[in-house]
Amino acid sequence: MDLVTLDDVRDAATRIAGRVVRTPLLPAGWDPEFWLKPESLQPVGSFKLRGATNAVARLTETERARGVVTHSSGNHGQALAYAARAAGAPCTVVIPEGAPTIKIEQVRALGAEVVLVPAAERLATAEWIVAERGRTLIPPYDDRNVIAGQGTIGLEIVEDLSEVEVVLVPVGGGGLASGVATAIKALQPLTRVYGVEPAYAADAQESLTSGKLVVWDLARTHRTSADGLRTSLAELTLAHLRERLDGILTVTESEIAAATARLVRGARLVVEPSGAVAAAARLFHRDELPSGRTVAVVSGGNVDPAVLAAAVAA
Amino acid sequence: MDLVTLDDVRDAATRIAGRVVRTPLLPAGWDPEFWLKPESLQPVGSFKLRGATNAVARLTETERARGVVTHSSGNHGQALAYAARAAGAPCTVVIPEGAPTIKIEQVRALGAEVVLVPAAERLATAEWIVAERGRTLIPPYDDRNVIAGQGTIGLEIVEDLSEVEVVLVPVGGGGLASGVATAIKALQPLTRVYGVEPAYAADAQESLTSGKLVVWDLARTHRTSADGLRTSLAELTLAHLRERLDGILTVTESEIAAATARLVRGARLVVEPSGAVAAAARLFHRDELPSGRTVAVVSGGNVDPAVLAAAVAA
Repeated sequence: MDLVTLDDVRDAATRIAGRVVRTPLLPAGWDPEFWLKPESLQPVGSFKLRGATNAVARLTETERARGVVTHSSGNHGQALAYAARAAGAPCTVVIPEGAPTIKIEQVRALGAEVVLVPAAERLATAEWIVAERGRTLIPPYDDRNVIAGQGTIGLEIVEDLSEVEVVLVPVGGGGLASGVATAIKALQPLTRVYGVEPAYAADAQESLTSGKLVVWDLARTHRTSADGLRTSLAELTLAHLRERLDGILTVTESEIAAATARLVRGARLVVEPSGAVAAAARLFHRDELPSGRTVAVVSGGNVDPAVLAAAVAA
Repeated sequence: MDLVTLDDVRDAATRIAGRVVRTPLLPAGWDPEFWLKPESLQPVGSFKLRGATNAVARLTETERARGVVTHSSGNHGQALAYAARAAGAPCTVVIPEGAPTIKIEQVRALGAEVVLVPAAERLATAEWIVAERGRTLIPPYDDRNVIAGQGTIGLEIVEDLSEVEVVLVPVGGGGLASGVATAIKALQPLTRVYGVEPAYAADAQESLTSGKLVVWDLARTHRTSADGLRTSLAELTLAHLRERLDGILTVTESEIAAATARLVRGARLVVEPSGAVAAAARLFHRDELPSGRTVAVVSGGNVDPAVLAAAVAA
């Protein structure tokens, strides 16, 4: 399988410059060899804006006029709506009936069209919209342009801290980890890149161990608070992780909650549980990781107010 | 009076590069012509690290070995402790008896010595420590090096958004506003710089209107939740603001609370009330401000958990 290259990531960086926030590395006050890469500060609150912006920027003029569509109602849906609006492209987001009203309103507020369908019909509906209306499907992670866009985070980490020894990245569908590992390992092969996922959604770890794509269904993964990490890998992201990741760790729900609280109160970042898993690995699993200068990607900050309130009170 | 110059600010920028976080400008999702400069992301949670780092960097080797002292127990005390530790200089922070234990612990955790005295004896004690122990006093705002350090925020704003038309800056002792206005007005005289303060601590506005230093005592200013802005100007900062500020606005306590909530939930930043006043001016006093591209300095994020919890629930 053809993997994304460092050049792809560099091209993405040129394309998205000025359209996404160039996030800084923040020293973690409680650990002198630990830095945070706060993607929660992107306008839509997650790293997804990078991949979506790169994918939209690669459209031809005709494609852009016909617009884009996706079937992710989470952070990718919002990111695509934002990126499409910024590029002047129409956007449709297919959302399952019963999704929280707030999510539907947020996507509409970004100027996108919302199509509500039964959950099982999401992908088919998106494909129908592609066929009938000529929109281009931009998937949340199973896409080379999306992976290359997320990889720009890796370029920036090396730019800001060339002595980095360990990079920790959340793994859901694997787009973020694929992109970041691609950039880091190409630039600095000795830097270790680890994926981190909730123990309740450890399908990527099982896939890597078994050497083939393992899918855990939602009936199993819904138990994790890290809702952004309940999805499984695609063959494309599995191929990247198998080649470029140094390992994968799992964290428990109580570790995720404690890391969320630490980031809110110790780093003054509003983060969602999915955004806290990489920091949780450094906080609670140091014995499973190499020592040295470590960066954790804080992937997003779209947190339910009740979860945030619990983190503040903890 | 000799005012700080653009060259002083540029020299400070060179000195503090790599020692403080180069914060980005964050587009505010709810307002297309509004950006936030999140100084809450500095390691000690406030812009104060810039001024303290610059002041410490200007010490001679002998002075550095003798160390520094300050009588501010708030954000400046923590910032000075952090900057001194980073430079290998001893640091003493004079703190009034009865201050919250958490503040004392935070300063000690940064390696500084804490001296507890009755509130009325703070300044005298700091001066005694200077005389007896040869430490250098680094005041929180009445100091050219501190002002020049805070001014680096202005340089960065123009670097990131040269089309900026309005800059909003919180005013307490006036060091931040003095520095930012110095940089902005020298680089782009047509950009307007406004100070913002709580109505309950509007001593800077009264000072500027009356043309002379007016001090509101704590018995009056303690009513504002923006505890970082309860202090009054010094002659040095008043001289800068009179020369370089385009105006000064006041915001109410309910506006501060609403802006805090908006920054937490809409921009995913943990902010303290003092850090929210500039955003409050844009949110609630647009009719008193010129239109156009506006940046608000979010000065700090050291918020009491109860205040943060209220903002999350709002």
